[in-house]
Amino acid sequence: MAHALYEYDGLCRNIHGHSYNLQVTLIGEIKNQPGHPKDGMVMDFSELKEIVKSQVVNRFDHSLMVNSLFPTKQIELLKQTTNRVIVVDFQPTSENIVAYIAKILQQHLPSDVTLFSIRLYETVTSYAEWFASDNQAIK
Amino acid sequence: MAHALYEYDGLCRNIHGHSYNLQVTLIGEIKNQPGHPKDGMVMDFSELKEIVKSQVVNRFDHSLMVNSLFPTKQIELLKQTTNRVIVVDFQPTSENIVAYIAKILQQHLPSDVTLFSIRLYETVTSYAEWFASDNQAIK
Amino acid sequence: MAHALYEYDGLCRNIHGHSYNLQVTLIGEIKNQPGHPKDGMVMDFSELKEIVKSQVVNRFDHSLMVNSLFPTKQIELLKQTTNRVIVVDFQPTSENIVAYIAKILQQHLPSDVTLFSIRLYETVTSYAEWFASDNQAIK
Repeated sequence: MAHALYEYDGLCRNIHGHSYNLQVTLIGEIKNQPGHPKDGMVMDFSELKEIVKSQVVNRFDHSLMVNSLFPTKQIELLKQTTNRVIVVDFQPTSENIVAYIAKILQQHLPSDVTLFSIRLYETVTSYAEWFASDNQAIK
Repeated sequence: MAHALYEYDGLCRNIHGHSYNLQVTLIGEIKNQPGHPKDGMVMDFSELKEIVKSQVVNRFDHSLMVNSLFPTKQIELLKQTTNRVIVVDFQPTSENIVAYIAKILQQHLPSDVTLFSIRLYETVTSYAEWFASDNQAIK
Repeated sequence: MAHALYEYDGLCRNIHGHSYNLQVTLIGEIKNQPGHPKDGMVMDFSELKEIVKSQVVNRFDHSLMVNSLFPTKQIELLKQTTNRVIVVDFQPTSENIVAYIAKILQQHLPSDVTLFSIRLYETVTSYAEWFASDNQAIK
């Protein structure tokens, strides 16, 4: 995904891309139902992957996320150059994107598991992490 | 280690292997005894490795873990094909295996350290994690 | 960095080096000031890197850290062989070094963020981790 930071005082104000790496951690009881297909699981890894893929990865992959504060004309020009411009009402930093992803996932996870944390690596050495326990109010 | 999930509704019902990756985290006070061989350590890394290796890795490495719910005849056949069949009374998912390993390690760690967490990677991208703080009752 | 453990009962009593890997995690509010250069950030990654680099990495990289308990004569000899001998009043284990780094960083971080944790890998598989929550008293 590419992003551009509005009014940032460094190179990141220009459009640039990252190979983001997303780690999603759930918390829940292990299903204890011998003979049940999902016995012994908190959640089937493949179901979690499907939700993350359909709701997050497919939506943001190879897109360009821009702050709605950018001048309308500039955003219109960007839309002419690429099909996947996502205009958001926040600065697309790792910190804000990870909180945004948390909100999306919380709406799509089954009711018997809880989102515990999300870590978003912007580069191999830099990440932002969101913990449910720090964000009770916006849950 | 290989495993097979009894009655699972996917490919994992068949015997298949993983290169599991185990991360063990302890919590404890740093020994403050200048001149003592273990001064400045919570626990000597090499001692921890030795316990994990002897109690967990050597036991499960290159074994086949199967749920005791599998028909006796099928288990007997497996035992004829390999020497290292481990029959357990739970579904051998990552979630259950990590809890099982926690119980084993808690019995073998020195009394001055406490098991804090265990993370078991089933694949490079999928892991189950056990926290002592979530499992006070079964400690 | 190299170190030697005074009176340790193993090979690590000799001078030996590690490619330490340091992970620093902060906690803080996301700045919500549209139009501000740091809008959407807890702390600019590049500023954090600069502090870690100047206060920790540059100080310890390619140095030899030794316990002040080593005989003075031995320390003097070491200083004749290398320019970067750091004499500390603790055993330079990962556990002690990570606590030492925590104290340094706490003195240099901006007041609007808090040090959450520091993980110091001594090898690819062994790390010591310091959590602010476990160390309120020495903060």
